[in-house]
Amino acid sequence: MSQIRHALSVTRDADFAAWYQDVITEAEMAEESGVRGCMVIRPWGYGIWERIQKLMDERIKAAGVENCYFPLFIPLSFFAKEAAHVDGFAKEMAVVTHHRLIADGKGGLVPDPEAKLEEPLIVRPTSETVIGAAMSRWVQSWRDLPLLANQWANVVRWEMRTRMFLRTSEFLWQEGHTAHADRADAMIETLRALEMYRSFSEEALAMPVFAGEKPENERFPGAVATYSIEAMMQDGKALQAGTSHYLGTGFAEAAEIRYQDREGQQALCHTTSWGVSTRMIGGVIMTHGDDDGLRVPPAIAPQQIVILPMLREDDGDAALLAYCEELRAALVKQSALGEPLRVLLDKRPGKATQKRWAWVKKGVPLILEIGGRDAAGAMVSVLRRDRLWREDAKVNFAAQAREAFLAAAAAEIEDIQRSLHADATARRDANIERGVTSLAELEALFADEKRYPGWVELSWSRPGGAELEEVVAKLKALKLTIRNTPLDAAPATGTCLFTGQPAVERIFVARAY
Amino acid sequence: MSQIRHALSVTRDADFAAWYQDVITEAEMAEESGVRGCMVIRPWGYGIWERIQKLMDERIKAAGVENCYFPLFIPLSFFAKEAAHVDGFAKEMAVVTHHRLIADGKGGLVPDPEAKLEEPLIVRPTSETVIGAAMSRWVQSWRDLPLLANQWANVVRWEMRTRMFLRTSEFLWQEGHTAHADRADAMIETLRALEMYRSFSEEALAMPVFAGEKPENERFPGAVATYSIEAMMQDGKALQAGTSHYLGTGFAEAAEIRYQDREGQQALCHTTSWGVSTRMIGGVIMTHGDDDGLRVPPAIAPQQIVILPMLREDDGDAALLAYCEELRAALVKQSALGEPLRVLLDKRPGKATQKRWAWVKKGVPLILEIGGRDAAGAMVSVLRRDRLWREDAKVNFAAQAREAFLAAAAAEIEDIQRSLHADATARRDANIERGVTSLAELEALFADEKRYPGWVELSWSRPGGAELEEVVAKLKALKLTIRNTPLDAAPATGTCLFTGQPAVERIFVARAY
Repeated sequence: MSQIRHALSVTRDADFAAWYQDVITEAEMAEESGVRGCMVIRPWGYGIWERIQKLMDERIKAAGVENCYFPLFIPLSFFAKEAAHVDGFAKEMAVVTHHRLIADGKGGLVPDPEAKLEEPLIVRPTSETVIGAAMSRWVQSWRDLPLLANQWANVVRWEMRTRMFLRTSEFLWQEGHTAHADRADAMIETLRALEMYRSFSEEALAMPVFAGEKPENERFPGAVATYSIEAMMQDGKALQAGTSHYLGTGFAEAAEIRYQDREGQQALCHTTSWGVSTRMIGGVIMTHGDDDGLRVPPAIAPQQIVILPMLREDDGDAALLAYCEELRAALVKQSALGEPLRVLLDKRPGKATQKRWAWVKKGVPLILEIGGRDAAGAMVSVLRRDRLWREDAKVNFAAQAREAFLAAAAAEIEDIQRSLHADATARRDANIERGVTSLAELEALFADEKRYPGWVELSWSRPGGAELEEVVAKLKALKLTIRNTPLDAAPATGTCLFTGQPAVERIFVARAY
Repeated sequence: MSQIRHALSVTRDADFAAWYQDVITEAEMAEESGVRGCMVIRPWGYGIWERIQKLMDERIKAAGVENCYFPLFIPLSFFAKEAAHVDGFAKEMAVVTHHRLIADGKGGLVPDPEAKLEEPLIVRPTSETVIGAAMSRWVQSWRDLPLLANQWANVVRWEMRTRMFLRTSEFLWQEGHTAHADRADAMIETLRALEMYRSFSEEALAMPVFAGEKPENERFPGAVATYSIEAMMQDGKALQAGTSHYLGTGFAEAAEIRYQDREGQQALCHTTSWGVSTRMIGGVIMTHGDDDGLRVPPAIAPQQIVILPMLREDDGDAALLAYCEELRAALVKQSALGEPLRVLLDKRPGKATQKRWAWVKKGVPLILEIGGRDAAGAMVSVLRRDRLWREDAKVNFAAQAREAFLAAAAAEIEDIQRSLHADATARRDANIERGVTSLAELEALFADEKRYPGWVELSWSRPGGAELEEVVAKLKALKLTIRNTPLDAAPATGTCLFTGQPAVERIFVARAY
């Protein structure tokens, strides 16, 4: 039997990190920009982000949250206030100190010493402080609550080691910020956002996740509780793909977000914040990509179907193009996943085979190759990206009558969405070890060079403080971290393998990005 | 006859600048952020921007332009390269010099001297340089051309005197950047973008504009030709609301954007760039606002119809709300201007009159006030924002049967769009003086305290260089600038009133923002 000749030069098995970068390059999703830690997001990568934005924004708006825009720059003093009450304050940030360049007299430019800012400005790493200041102006009485705001924006966190989409100095995200009258209402919002992220990941990204609370040591600095969605990548590592924080009254106190309650008393608001970012695209790559490149779930695919006419630069091309254009027009009248089909007729010059492989690597769900004979015979040649290879290692094209294909196209697109989700869920569930009851067993699983490609779900006693720090240190020695306490876990059983105390809940332990 | 009691405390006549700011505050569009030159865009202002983005993005995509994302930061050296070949190089930019904060030992934070960047980074004022560098990687052969890219982004230009939406240090915009094989193709794209902006302004913003070429002295630094759309505000000043530049081969040379042509020869690309920004929102305010606040053209109104139930906090409220909800449901099934109607049922607590005036100031096109008796009698009480007052100075509510209103609602929305455009066009055209043939006449129009509230269209000889500088200086003494040479102007007549040479084209001269 012949060997499959994959489209990428690196396989997942050989070198997962190199494979990841290769997918991004070959699918033309992003590239190095020449600016430290910042990437250029190319049309295919940005198109996926636009789809994520659109579908997430609909959910955000449906929840009554209103979009706003807050400044890119935050005065240094805002952080000094925060630093005073937040221990884990992150200090790696881009600092603007000057507002003018002048010639250095040697043909170059330098920051003008005369244009030094009195107070440096920080490029926002997140906007709690500046949004809190606005909320303190906007909230007067209980009638103004809840206050539900969101922004789509770029943020900057100076990262020493960067990886495209997963950890870049500048990234794109949405950040929701809400203020509430009491703890109960704020907790409902925190969990609503978490559930929004969970269902979005499953439905739009076809990426199964566990939603749950992060342990104390992984909380957002200043938060009372931090929740996350955690996805398993194909190398068995966990990816935190979204977070939602209940911030208590601490941020409201720092920003003076107070309201008059129904009894006329002044009270502090309870606030929340929640966000997802371009990191999700990294999750999609490592969930659905294969050795031939990306596979994009149809819900977030910029194009769901690409039609490739096999042009021969002769008299037959006009009829072929007319046939393809008619096919495109018929397809875009159909809907799948609640929206009209997105179909591209790729008429660019170039060899059809070359173009086919470019689209395979980009992961477009369905590719149609149409030759002159197909056009004459009212046929189409269909390739499902998630079933790329036949058993005999040939490309799995299926010849179909045009009418039959048209009748089934929307269902086919929906089936690909479902199928990617089912495959990813089965893979994940097969890689969760639930039988670990002692630290020795855990150590054995991750010991030495043995690469256990999954997660461990175990019962623990939820220690805090110094006791938790000991647990974290033991896990760190195995390069493991606690991911979260899934909301839908089974009850805990037995004793905690770290503390020997009775177990109270289940957690996921894994290596992570 | 009683006097109209307007919703704003300042009128356009009394103080146009104060009125402008008052509209923004009272319509809750934006506010000061506490960060120098940066504003907070509130939900109503941002909602208008989202509408502008959506409608413009559709036009951009329809032209085959693909969205991407490029870094916020640009290395200083990129500008040094540009500064060397661009005379008018603007140097007021935000400069990032450090990437970490540390405690200053006095309870505050300072930039860490150990974390000084080797090369300062500039917060992008525009992205020609960094996009040019990407284009030089992406363009290899004639097959890669034209390369059509766009990004929606925030940019920063350090402004000493700022005014909300019109001139802020940070603003939001789209910037299109394209590369072409030759001058002809690049000029077609430059003019396509200009026409896109012109039709968008007229159709979406209901803001009449003249599209034309800017004079030599107003060109984007480094451009071969700069085109603009120019709108007349209600104080008679001009607002440049969008620009499109043909950049020749100069930028391609600096960024090394070369391609192999069909004959196998290396050639430089011809590039263009074009952009519109949140400034357009300032134009909408000063085109359509009145002494009662904003009037938003329906095409860009976040809500086109607001339903205000006159709740009495008694048993009748349930039936009233059910009636209003049914009305909303019936309306959103209808389409106007090619999209489903956007309708809000405003159930928030508060007095109906107070809420009515808040929506009047926000400029929502149609307001429906529904009381218990309306609900019982299948009636609605309708207020068109563009016909707010009756002749007797009362608010112009019209009682209509529910069915009659529903049958006409979509047409009414389209009529408001048309009507705002017609009013603005009539006002503009009435304020263009075309009979000026001498400098003395021009001086007389704008002399001293006399405030001529409009533009002058005149014929000139299109002088360049030093001769043009003289003209510009003469105009500057009258606080006037040359706006553009409208593409659709009548042929020039007579002699140039500046140079005495035979006139070759017509230009607009005006005071401007």
